[in-house]
Amino acid sequence: METTIRQNIFENAKKWVYEAGKRIREQMQHEFQINTKSNVNDLVTEIDRSTEQFFANQIRTTYPSHYIISEEGFGDKINDMNGTIWIIDPIDGTMNFVHQKRNFAISIGIYHNGVGEIALIYNVIDDVLYTAIKGEGAYRNRDRLPQLKQDVQLETSILAMNSLFACENRRVNEKKIQQLIIDCRGTRSYGSAALEFAYVAEGIIDAYVTLRLSPWDFGAGLILVREVGGETIQLDGKPVNFLQNNTILTCNPAIRQRILTDYIEWK
Amino acid sequence: METTIRQNIFENAKKWVYEAGKRIREQMQHEFQINTKSNVNDLVTEIDRSTEQFFANQIRTTYPSHYIISEEGFGDKINDMNGTIWIIDPIDGTMNFVHQKRNFAISIGIYHNGVGEIALIYNVIDDVLYTAIKGEGAYRNRDRLPQLKQDVQLETSILAMNSLFACENRRVNEKKIQQLIIDCRGTRSYGSAALEFAYVAEGIIDAYVTLRLSPWDFGAGLILVREVGGETIQLDGKPVNFLQNNTILTCNPAIRQRILTDYIEWK
Repeated sequence: METTIRQNIFENAKKWVYEAGKRIREQMQHEFQINTKSNVNDLVTEIDRSTEQFFANQIRTTYPSHYIISEEGFGDKINDMNGTIWIIDPIDGTMNFVHQKRNFAISIGIYHNGVGEIALIYNVIDDVLYTAIKGEGAYRNRDRLPQLKQDVQLETSILAMNSLFACENRRVNEKKIQQLIIDCRGTRSYGSAALEFAYVAEGIIDAYVTLRLSPWDFGAGLILVREVGGETIQLDGKPVNFLQNNTILTCNPAIRQRILTDYIEWK
Repeated sequence: METTIRQNIFENAKKWVYEAGKRIREQMQHEFQINTKSNVNDLVTEIDRSTEQFFANQIRTTYPSHYIISEEGFGDKINDMNGTIWIIDPIDGTMNFVHQKRNFAISIGIYHNGVGEIALIYNVIDDVLYTAIKGEGAYRNRDRLPQLKQDVQLETSILAMNSLFACENRRVNEKKIQQLIIDCRGTRSYGSAALEFAYVAEGIIDAYVTLRLSPWDFGAGLILVREVGGETIQLDGKPVNFLQNNTILTCNPAIRQRILTDYIEWK
């Protein structure tokens, strides 16, 4: 993607993200409808939907040749990563949005022929915008994030994971995961994948590991983390696939192999 | 405790907390020494110690008859809860303080003859002060916190707990804890007990459950949660003991019995 085109798309995306954030803060002041999707804890609100529709309308008007992969149904049916694709989660962390009225984010990753070009993760309530442009580094508001430290060890790392990961499951040996929890310095769980990627990019957690994420959960985060020298892969070590759900490890590369080798045992 | 005395102590405590927060924010700008205590992940910094010493000096000068229970060694040797006792954690969430430079709090609970009179939990970086005075409710900065909702059910609750709780341990059946994680709507882990109590008081999580807390971890939180109608007990249902470590459940009373009966099975 040409630099000037990339910059133009970034400026528009940023403007729309701030505008969407303002709309969300206003809409939250009133009662809003909450529904469930795949299960009783998979929440969606009318604000998720109207926010996604807002982005879809802006993108289709301004960039009619671009495609959209998104959570709430306003996107396109996509079979490959050709062309320019916006991967959008209008509200990442909807459970936090509903229960906490904070700790959620707008997440937008923009890819061109499969390459991550632009990332925006906006913590709407704290008014903190994480951004990244390919080759130009990552930012937290106006502060450039430093490259991740290279002298990180698992024993002094903080890992983000959902407690469910430590419970019996059909995918991986939970005893090994429990050993990972014991061996690292500590674990955290914040309830928003996009923010957990942002915290890895900030270096305030050293890895985020999970058994199931959709492309809109990591589309932006992967680019943000890459721009500070971090890595995002599937738990079997393969590259992520943007057209399906993935197991995910995003982390400081210093602890990647140790986690995959010593603690991930497939059933 | 008389109302005017209580108010006087509260005003001083609040002034000192804000002053200590300012000192911490300044001290964080420079390099500081980090040590370990009981184990390699039990961290303490010179800022923890100097903050505690700051409080101890203020209290001993202003209220020479008061006692102090505190984390870092500047407190008194206490054998009972008679008199007026300040229970202090100068930096609750030291691991967050060291790794994240945020998500930590100053925690102060003030008890008179065993009764919780005053609580202050100060999120130093976000500049959010939670306060409570006996019988006068709880506040988040200037906003009074509403009483906890009564129509809360476990299946739609968010619980705070450390992932370690789901791992094999000598105290409780971890399979039951794993079932609790599966049955509730979601879990979170923030790494600061004082803030986790504050979130229960805010109603943004419905319970915080842990196998081991020291009095300075919950001394303020218990009062804050009580003032919005919440409860703090040991996992065997007994009242907490301020003179030793405790298992802790602090929660919306609507889900207390369900957690204790269905999910806590002692080994």
